[in-house]
Amino acid sequence: MAPINVALIGYAFMGRAHSNAYRQVGPFFSPRRPPHMKVICGRTSAEVERARVTLGWQEGATDWREVVRRKDIDLVDVCTPGDSHAEIAIAAARAGKAVFCEKPLANSLKDAERMLAAVEKAGVAHMICHNYRRIPAVMLAKQLISDGALGEIRHYRGTYLQDWMSDPAAPFNWRLDREKAGSGALGDIASHSIDLARFLVGEITEVTADLKTFVPVRPAAGKPRARVNVTVDDAAMALVHFANGAVGTIEATRMAPGRKNFNRFEINGRLGSIAFNLERMNELEVYFENDPPHLKGFRTIMVTEGAHPFVGRWWPPGHVIGYEHTFVHTVYDLLEAIADGNVPEPNFADGVANQRVLTAIERAARTRRWQRI
Amino acid sequence: MAPINVALIGYAFMGRAHSNAYRQVGPFFSPRRPPHMKVICGRTSAEVERARVTLGWQEGATDWREVVRRKDIDLVDVCTPGDSHAEIAIAAARAGKAVFCEKPLANSLKDAERMLAAVEKAGVAHMICHNYRRIPAVMLAKQLISDGALGEIRHYRGTYLQDWMSDPAAPFNWRLDREKAGSGALGDIASHSIDLARFLVGEITEVTADLKTFVPVRPAAGKPRARVNVTVDDAAMALVHFANGAVGTIEATRMAPGRKNFNRFEINGRLGSIAFNLERMNELEVYFENDPPHLKGFRTIMVTEGAHPFVGRWWPPGHVIGYEHTFVHTVYDLLEAIADGNVPEPNFADGVANQRVLTAIERAARTRRWQRI
Amino acid sequence: MAPINVALIGYAFMGRAHSNAYRQVGPFFSPRRPPHMKVICGRTSAEVERARVTLGWQEGATDWREVVRRKDIDLVDVCTPGDSHAEIAIAAARAGKAVFCEKPLANSLKDAERMLAAVEKAGVAHMICHNYRRIPAVMLAKQLISDGALGEIRHYRGTYLQDWMSDPAAPFNWRLDREKAGSGALGDIASHSIDLARFLVGEITEVTADLKTFVPVRPAAGKPRARVNVTVDDAAMALVHFANGAVGTIEATRMAPGRKNFNRFEINGRLGSIAFNLERMNELEVYFENDPPHLKGFRTIMVTEGAHPFVGRWWPPGHVIGYEHTFVHTVYDLLEAIADGNVPEPNFADGVANQRVLTAIERAARTRRWQRI
Amino acid sequence: MAPINVALIGYAFMGRAHSNAYRQVGPFFSPRRPPHMKVICGRTSAEVERARVTLGWQEGATDWREVVRRKDIDLVDVCTPGDSHAEIAIAAARAGKAVFCEKPLANSLKDAERMLAAVEKAGVAHMICHNYRRIPAVMLAKQLISDGALGEIRHYRGTYLQDWMSDPAAPFNWRLDREKAGSGALGDIASHSIDLARFLVGEITEVTADLKTFVPVRPAAGKPRARVNVTVDDAAMALVHFANGAVGTIEATRMAPGRKNFNRFEINGRLGSIAFNLERMNELEVYFENDPPHLKGFRTIMVTEGAHPFVGRWWPPGHVIGYEHTFVHTVYDLLEAIADGNVPEPNFADGVANQRVLTAIERAARTRRWQRI
Repeated sequence: MAPINVALIGYAFMGRAHSNAYRQVGPFFSPRRPPHMKVICGRTSAEVERARVTLGWQEGATDWREVVRRKDIDLVDVCTPGDSHAEIAIAAARAGKAVFCEKPLANSLKDAERMLAAVEKAGVAHMICHNYRRIPAVMLAKQLISDGALGEIRHYRGTYLQDWMSDPAAPFNWRLDREKAGSGALGDIASHSIDLARFLVGEITEVTADLKTFVPVRPAAGKPRARVNVTVDDAAMALVHFANGAVGTIEATRMAPGRKNFNRFEINGRLGSIAFNLERMNELEVYFENDPPHLKGFRTIMVTEGAHPFVGRWWPPGHVIGYEHTFVHTVYDLLEAIADGNVPEPNFADGVANQRVLTAIERAARTRRWQRI
Repeated sequence: MAPINVALIGYAFMGRAHSNAYRQVGPFFSPRRPPHMKVICGRTSAEVERARVTLGWQEGATDWREVVRRKDIDLVDVCTPGDSHAEIAIAAARAGKAVFCEKPLANSLKDAERMLAAVEKAGVAHMICHNYRRIPAVMLAKQLISDGALGEIRHYRGTYLQDWMSDPAAPFNWRLDREKAGSGALGDIASHSIDLARFLVGEITEVTADLKTFVPVRPAAGKPRARVNVTVDDAAMALVHFANGAVGTIEATRMAPGRKNFNRFEINGRLGSIAFNLERMNELEVYFENDPPHLKGFRTIMVTEGAHPFVGRWWPPGHVIGYEHTFVHTVYDLLEAIADGNVPEPNFADGVANQRVLTAIERAARTRRWQRI
Repeated sequence: MAPINVALIGYAFMGRAHSNAYRQVGPFFSPRRPPHMKVICGRTSAEVERARVTLGWQEGATDWREVVRRKDIDLVDVCTPGDSHAEIAIAAARAGKAVFCEKPLANSLKDAERMLAAVEKAGVAHMICHNYRRIPAVMLAKQLISDGALGEIRHYRGTYLQDWMSDPAAPFNWRLDREKAGSGALGDIASHSIDLARFLVGEITEVTADLKTFVPVRPAAGKPRARVNVTVDDAAMALVHFANGAVGTIEATRMAPGRKNFNRFEINGRLGSIAFNLERMNELEVYFENDPPHLKGFRTIMVTEGAHPFVGRWWPPGHVIGYEHTFVHTVYDLLEAIADGNVPEPNFADGVANQRVLTAIERAARTRRWQRI
Repeated sequence: MAPINVALIGYAFMGRAHSNAYRQVGPFFSPRRPPHMKVICGRTSAEVERARVTLGWQEGATDWREVVRRKDIDLVDVCTPGDSHAEIAIAAARAGKAVFCEKPLANSLKDAERMLAAVEKAGVAHMICHNYRRIPAVMLAKQLISDGALGEIRHYRGTYLQDWMSDPAAPFNWRLDREKAGSGALGDIASHSIDLARFLVGEITEVTADLKTFVPVRPAAGKPRARVNVTVDDAAMALVHFANGAVGTIEATRMAPGRKNFNRFEINGRLGSIAFNLERMNELEVYFENDPPHLKGFRTIMVTEGAHPFVGRWWPPGHVIGYEHTFVHTVYDLLEAIADGNVPEPNFADGVANQRVLTAIERAARTRRWQRI
């Protein structure tokens, strides 16, 4: 089958991660329609050229509008900050391209809904990059829940803790700017906890929440004497109800010293529990209520076996994978869905659903009341 | 100095734990006024006698009213279910006895306040048994926070997870009865998380909360076909604000398979973090932001050294202690406070403050709004 | 049944631990013949009196020869340094007393054999205090192996690591004196690893070994300028063969910074593995080869359930026990064996077998060749 | 600078890992002379072609003798089984090529020495692929030891445990054949523990050892009724002495159920300890004797910071890397050394030194005596 020609818009952190996925998916997963890394696009031509060479793209470009209209492009991958997602994704959809978009889908629910409408109207494949769904340990968790191995789910306990904004002297950056980023820890990392909650437990129906900015003013980057107002949250906390009767707590912060990428969840069901932590992403902890009484205990499963999702394509058992592999798995499923004419999951509908929860959390924090989704 | 004559009211789980503390405090801590285990009191005379012999008390009794009035009693220890705490403690205070009372102080805020008024009016020593404050690892946590080693405190994250009510077929018992127990997981175990929050971080000023009963009807004990309504919560969750600007999440459940006594907290400050889990109660995890960049990491401190609180009285370094030792430490401080004519901490004022938070959580869950304490 | 009158010889670390066991065994285990703490014996009368009061003995004495001959004594408990075990235990046996002796049984194989001969000739009960056998997690390990749950055993990997002699400036003490202590890390702590090996895997048939003294000269205690020669090993390492075909490694040191009481073993069998560490003595890690392929993992079993050995006598599930509880379990089994007229395990025959391995290790280290036991 | 043209001999597990390294080293490390993946060579032309396409090589070839003589080849990478290393590497050296060779360097010490002589005579760059040296956590360990942060080193404790040969019904394969593989667990995985010992502690001067084959006969692959003799060890154990006075234990097995890739070491020095486990390769545990008494504890350092070796080239802090990244680091240092005209480490001299230890272990096991290296 023909390769899929990809245009990547953006070349920062996520641009690097996606580029790596396109490079690696072939050797390890042999998709039926391999990706062709056609063009990378950014605002500054010198930096685009540097990224093109380093990341392995065929061409560089600086005008995304032109790029998304090119006949020879099949898939547009949107890795820009959240405030430009809608415009680019919608233009790409209108041009009939498959669209792969970083999370959060947009900075507002309205934009997210417009994006979903656009891809559905255009009838193109669309996917949102919640890459943590495709960690083998998370896939295993999903499988156990789907199989009923945990029974009725009662509790979801999701925390995403980082520490990179802990120091009040750390300078202002775009992730602290509401205009660019939409929100702070909420959209940046709580959105992952919410996606995992929806993936593993089900739809969230209502929330009550709290947002906190510990450091409301920071030095400007490069100008230590200038002061800039932080317009987003440093931390977000919510109590949630799920449609299936489960209850949950979700917490995200950038102010937890020592927690580098502590995306952890624990799920308790009638028949067992599972726990996961991104900092030890090759492991899943599982407890079964129905094990013999003297042999009950959390199993630390090294999710690196041929019997586990995705991971057998990489190395022999016990040989761990890392952060970027999750993007390779995601891109693989995207490419296969395109080859099959399907829309993969999670897609823009999931992005909209996620945004609804984020919006409800903001509203709950403001009104100090529970909010229905 | 003269021994302190003790009367213990109640001989179940807590009665056993307190009896052990009186037996062990002498050999290991040599209090200036050693306890004399004078009389144990309960309702059923045959069971009292059995408890007396097993637990090592001099006399047995069945009428607590008589006991608390006895001239030869110095200290009344209240280990009955929560619905009788107020009556017994107030009578003891009026009789001029020092009073040691299990938690929660009472089943209602009003009762708790009456108890506090009574001990203050009587001018007697009083203490509430939040024994987890005197785990050496928790004492070390307190010391680090007091010393400023963590800097300004920002986050408290307390979970108390158990699993003994997970099975819907598990029969009804008094802890599921609002009349007897006051509340469910909330008063039973969340109250510990709240006490640790107050001890380590400071006063809680407002809360929003959620209470959940997953299994509203259970078989009657001994009569599997009879059905009894569960009138308390199986799980309690709250978002909290502290007076000092910190924020927190508190969650307690009896429905987390595999979590046996998972009383865990994590505290994040400007300069570091600490984490503790009762299931590994001899350890404290500590992270310091100001360690050299390449050497930062959570330290797992075995809190079994002579340099640590209390533990040097037991065994050499590396020789772990267990659950019941926390009661010995608590009783030791109580006895020393009595010897000194002081009121130890935590005392009935802490019990009232704790009850205020419990009450606010119930109100917040009912009204679905934040509640000020 | 009549109480068992106990005489304790020695009141240092082990004397305290044994005294505690006699105090606690009644309230928690209700042995049919409860111990009566009759007399404690040591060399210095003032210190004996202090110990008597603190530890709860009825009488004090300074002449062990008299004590072991007293008509009213049933059980002699030997807690002195190793160089006096033989003389005391043999005298006690000849006087018809049951004998409970700390490990190692003696400082030489010859003495150990004389002790065994004496108790067998006298027909008295005898036990050696390898208390770690009666850690509930270790009992569970034993049960799994006996049940065949691990299949044929192939590997034993025992390490006992401590760090209290790590500093070359730490002063000389009797445990560094070959005359008093027999050997260093070898007899003090490797002997525990050997006992656990024999208990869990079976008899050791041959060894090759290495002994190392890192700090051959130390300051005298209290006289920092005086220098004393260390006449024992700081560390001991051995490769071993078992009668059943398994192979093992055993290592003990007092020079491993950060390892406080790291008595760890791992056993690999055809069908599974187990791992234990004294620093987390309430846990056992177990792996089963025959679990479903996607669900294999080491289970961390909290060995605090009613379904586990001994522990149900203490507190509810999830309430951990500590170091000294292992002595209570040991004493309980000793008292029950005496009540039944049996010889418990491990007994002096185990002490002799252990000493044979210790002796073979010393010989192997000296000759630099494998030695048959 | 000109690219380095690479010829890869072998396309199995290691061929895949090395290919990945050549693909990834450019985007993440920008070596001054980037690798050009010129030709991959194997015996079967169809399989070579499949590997060529999948792994991203320009040409395929089936005659390694021709390949190593090609003018346009700069670097020959030897990924074949150990019995052909010598012939290929020597031919490549004679043809003036830089040589990169998988471990163990050869199946005999004699061959290894011939290889070293050949590369030295030819004056070409040479490297042996002990990739675990370039795990960031291992690099950090090295740095701490070199800086003296652990003080004088006393103990090395290396275990490499796997479980893939645990089942006696698992069929025979080339790694069980002495002719092909040289030895079993010894050369395959103990060689890694030995390399890490040499890297971190220093030269090994003498050993005593034990080799064990638990399953001496296995079914032939594909012919379950045929039986084949296993001619290598299933497990290897050794006690070792280092030139600097440290002592060590080394153990490797393929028979430890649940241990998938448990390449663990612990090093104890006068001033501290470090511990590492390949199954959690992004972490290093470090203990410092000179931390304040109440704050001593093993730190779990997430070795994912910019302050740590190599890892800053990948992703932000807390984003873990995996197994194959270690090859990328190794290849990077190889390419840079070639660019600089240097011989990198570890090289064929390290391969020879390693082989000397392996040989001494075999001799010690056979003679049952200590052997000098």
